[in-house]
Formats: sequence, structure tokens, C-alpha cells
Amino acid sequence: MSEARTSTTRARGEETRARIIQAAIETLKREGFGGASARAIARTGGFNQALIFYHFGSVRDLLLAALDETSARRMARYRVVVDDAETFQELIAAATEVYREDLASGHIKVLAEMIAGASSIAELGPEIVRRIEPWIAFARDAVARVSSTLPFPVPVPPEEAAFGIVALFLGIELLTHLEGDGTRSDRLFELGSQLAAMAGLLTGTPPVTGKGGE
Amino acid sequence: MSEARTSTTRARGEETRARIIQAAIETLKREGFGGASARAIARTGGFNQALIFYHFGSVRDLLLAALDETSARRMARYRVVVDDAETFQELIAAATEVYREDLASGHIKVLAEMIAGASSIAELGPEIVRRIEPWIAFARDAVARVSSTLPFPVPVPPEEAAFGIVALFLGIELLTHLEGDGTRSDRLFELGSQLAAMAGLLTGTPPVTGKGGE
Repeated sequence: MSEARTSTTRARGEETRARIIQAAIETLKREGFGGASARAIARTGGFNQALIFYHFGSVRDLLLAALDETSARRMARYRVVVDDAETFQELIAAATEVYREDLASGHIKVLAEMIAGASSIAELGPEIVRRIEPWIAFARDAVARVSSTLPFPVPVPPEEAAFGIVALFLGIELLTHLEGDGTRSDRLFELGSQLAAMAGLLTGTPPVTGKGGE
Repeated sequence: MSEARTSTTRARGEETRARIIQAAIETLKREGFGGASARAIARTGGFNQALIFYHFGSVRDLLLAALDETSARRMARYRVVVDDAETFQELIAAATEVYREDLASGHIKVLAEMIAGASSIAELGPEIVRRIEPWIAFARDAVARVSSTLPFPVPVPPEEAAFGIVALFLGIELLTHLEGDGTRSDRLFELGSQLAAMAGLLTGTPPVTGKGGE
């Protein structure tokens, strides 16, 4: 094959992979982990189920690729929103915004379904935790960056703080997802915002308004 | 039937219920939500599966009763450990102790399996959250009690703080359960303990040693 042809073939392969992943995401959201069989995913996407095994080897690996994809989309969005935050109050406003989007976008539904799947497939648990690592790194960087703007040293190692933040986020989002009602989580974010505003006044950082907390 | 006979019958009914619930707990731990069928639970307990429907109406209701039972056992233990805590440092030492027991006792495995089950049975999510309510009330009381011993007012409403604590606990325990490794959670509790000790020094509360943090 010529070089041009090889690259066309590769591009087509990427396109097919993306289409299969999108079908897996939709099937996970609609039918849950238990309903996300090769047959159901192929039906959602309108393709032959043999393509799943050709491109991903197994349904399990396809579903992990689906989680990778929704995580990557959310991470891109988190970067935009969180990188703009310069104070703890802005950081909490950003967190409120992305927490709501996590739920609305269905990413938490996909994550909750994969956690559910870890109940029947033992290797899935550590694979899911491995996919949470980049979020811990992301939280660590955000906390370290915002902490460095404070006029006093923060007595919390960023690594542990980041693990705590990610665990808290996971707990809040799972409870809200299970309950189907975000009133209590909203109040918690609102409280975080008020506390950050108070801390901001104490440290001389001007308060922020009109973002995330409404 | 005479009164004595009725009460013997009732006691036998309670005994049978308890035996069925224990079999459901063991089956959930060993075979997960997906494997916890009426047949599998009856096999674990060595009784006829018709007893499940007679006493609980459905497998779903039996599994919820199993979650109620492990929650009640843990709550009894939490009360003993947490009610002794008089400072935030003691409270965090108590939390470290009960978090480890939650994992070791298999309660988190049962909870994680029920959360997994909520993926295939929609009504299960709100039922699980309803069972988390007493934990929020418990955390609220503990925080309010310990806060009242501080020499300054705590700027956090106990209701929101309690929801945050329960969400954080759930997130930490689920991540540890999924990963099968508690190193990072242990470090987070250790950090909490150090921070509470620092806060204790600032507020003149004597530090506590030799409990939970080792």
C-alpha cells in the first residue's frame, strides 16, 4: 500500500473506533452496565458486533475506552473552567459548575455503571481507579496553584488534599446520582463558596460574585 | 393459639428472618449483587427459597434488609467509638478506626454491591440513599457535640457539614474498595489527625496519642 492509502485506512479505523465508543457510551447511559452487551452496543450504533472484537478485543475493553472518552471530554472542560480560577472562591465556583455538568452530561452515569460492573468483573475495580489518577493529579495541581497565591503557607500536602477532594467529589456525585436530587449537594457547594468568601475577606482577596453559586 | 404459643411462633419467625438475612449478607459478599439470587441465598443458608418470598416478599426487599442489618451493626459500633470522642482529634481517631472496620467487616462490600444493583433496578437508588440518612444525622450530632466544646463558633452549619462528611467517607471507602489498597486513604486520615492536633494546640486542647492513627 502507498503511504497515502495507509493513512486513509488509519483515519477510517479511527473513525470506526470513535463511532463504536460513542455507541458504547449511549448504551451504558440507557441500558446500564448489565445491558451493555456487544449485541446491544452494535444495535445502538447500527454496525456489526464483530467490529467491537476486531477494534477492542473485548466488550470489557470497549467499555473502559468509553469511560476514557467521557473522562477525557470532562477533563478538557475542567481544564478550561478550573485553569481560570485564581482564588479558592473562584475554584469552588468552578467546581460547582463542573459538578453540575458532570451530572447533566451523563459522565457520572457512565462512571456509576462502570463501578457497578466492577461488582461482577473483579479486574475492573483497579482499572477504574487507574482512570481516577489523572483527576487526582489535576486536583493536586489546581490546589497547589491556588495555594501559592495565599499570603500564608497551607498546612496540607497537595497529594493528600487532592485525594480527599476527588473522593469527596465522587461521593457527592454518586449520592446525587442515586437519589436523583441535587438539592443537598447544591447546598454543600453553596456553603463552600460562602466559606471561601469569608476566607477571602480574612486574607484580603476580593470576593467573586455571579458565578456558579446561583 | 394461646399467648405463649403466639410468642414462641413469633420468636421462631424472627429467628428464621435473621438466618435468611445472614445468608443474604454472605451471598452478597461472596457472589455480588448479580449472583445474589433467591436460589443462591437459599443454598448459602441451607433453607428452601420459598421462605425468602414468605418472609420478605421479594429478593430486592431481602437484600435491602441485609443492607439494613450490616448498617445497624456498624451504627452500633460507630456509636460506641464516636460517642467517646470529645475533641476533633479524638473524632478523627475514631473515624480512622471505624473506616478500617467498615472495610474489614465487609459492610462496604455489601454497600458497594447494592449501589451496583441500583444500576439494574431503578427504585434501589433512592432506597439506598434513604438508608444513608441515619448516617447523616449521626455525623451531624457528632460534629455539633464536638463543635460545642470549641472556644469559638464553627462557621459551618452541621447539616451541610454532615452531608459532606458522609459523602467523603463514601468516596474514600469506595475508592479503597475498588483499588483493593488503603495506603492513600490511611495517609488522608493520618493527615486529618495531624491537622486536628495542630488545631488542638492552637485552641489549647491537649493532643491525643496512641489511638487509630498508627
